[in-house]
Amino acid sequence: MAHIDLGVDEKAFPGINGPMVFRPETAKPLNELAEVLLRGPHSLSPGERELIAAYVSGRNECTFCCSSHSAFAAVQLDEGMALVDQVRADLDSAPVSDKLRALLRIAGAVQVSGRDVTPALVDAARAAGATDVELHDTVLIAAAFCMYNRYVDGLATFAPDDQERYLAAAHHIVANGYGG
Amino acid sequence: MAHIDLGVDEKAFPGINGPMVFRPETAKPLNELAEVLLRGPHSLSPGERELIAAYVSGRNECTFCCSSHSAFAAVQLDEGMALVDQVRADLDSAPVSDKLRALLRIAGAVQVSGRDVTPALVDAARAAGATDVELHDTVLIAAAFCMYNRYVDGLATFAPDDQERYLAAAHHIVANGYGG
Repeated sequence: MAHIDLGVDEKAFPGINGPMVFRPETAKPLNELAEVLLRGPHSLSPGERELIAAYVSGRNECTFCCSSHSAFAAVQLDEGMALVDQVRADLDSAPVSDKLRALLRIAGAVQVSGRDVTPALVDAARAAGATDVELHDTVLIAAAFCMYNRYVDGLATFAPDDQERYLAAAHHIVANGYGG
Repeated sequence: MAHIDLGVDEKAFPGINGPMVFRPETAKPLNELAEVLLRGPHSLSPGERELIAAYVSGRNECTFCCSSHSAFAAVQLDEGMALVDQVRADLDSAPVSDKLRALLRIAGAVQVSGRDVTPALVDAARAAGATDVELHDTVLIAAAFCMYNRYVDGLATFAPDDQERYLAAAHHIVANGYGG
């Protein structure tokens, strides 16, 4: 049970959905930020950006966010959940581009601390073709999921076990966007 | 020097200001979130909410955010910077209400991990009079500063040494709000 009375059936509004119903004033910018970062016009595909979100959420051990964004990545990547699982299990050997691997390493550093992003990590991503906007957005996606993960778990919200529910949410997000 | 070319004089746009000029699409929801959480209508004063932001930023060792929000708290609290310093140095002995102390302990837990927010921490805050909205917003303020701190430091932005600059920014925020 969540730490506060969210005013909803927690099983019907799992994870971040309950707090967003409870406090619509903060839900609005939280959804807008996710929409710009994960679905706005970009040189990284939505699937690649969702993969960064899933990777960080996994490292923060946030079951709801990691299951959600793994599903959101999987339905938008040709390689599906197999690739998400490979990246989360062993980034070094996962079959992603050198650029995406370098960006995921930066995201992994941000998950620990912003001060862990070294010039060497940035130089490696740049050498693999990363642009300033890609570097900026990777840092901010990783930082934002350090927020969303703490929000969801800091209120002890409910995380379903059923993977079908996360896939259904994925199809809803792809069709309607965040907050849609 | 920042990890990316922010397109501005970093000394004139320190900390989060440079990335916000670089990427206005994400600056908009980031400012809106800060405005609702720290300055919107609330049972906790803006000074108390800025104190939570300063406390978390200090624990994340983010010089720019900690200096900024310490100044923003100080100019909005009767006890000024002396209280901010006491809270940051030793929360247990700082002269704050039992409710605010309990909420700051929850914020400190969130800074480590959302999963560190225990029912005992929540019960203690509730026993000291904390409401569900105060608990929700404390968790989200702390989580949000785990984002802002990582954003500012993950891009290696410039943090001024001069405390007068942070106080000038504080007066600007009090007069104009976030993004104003």
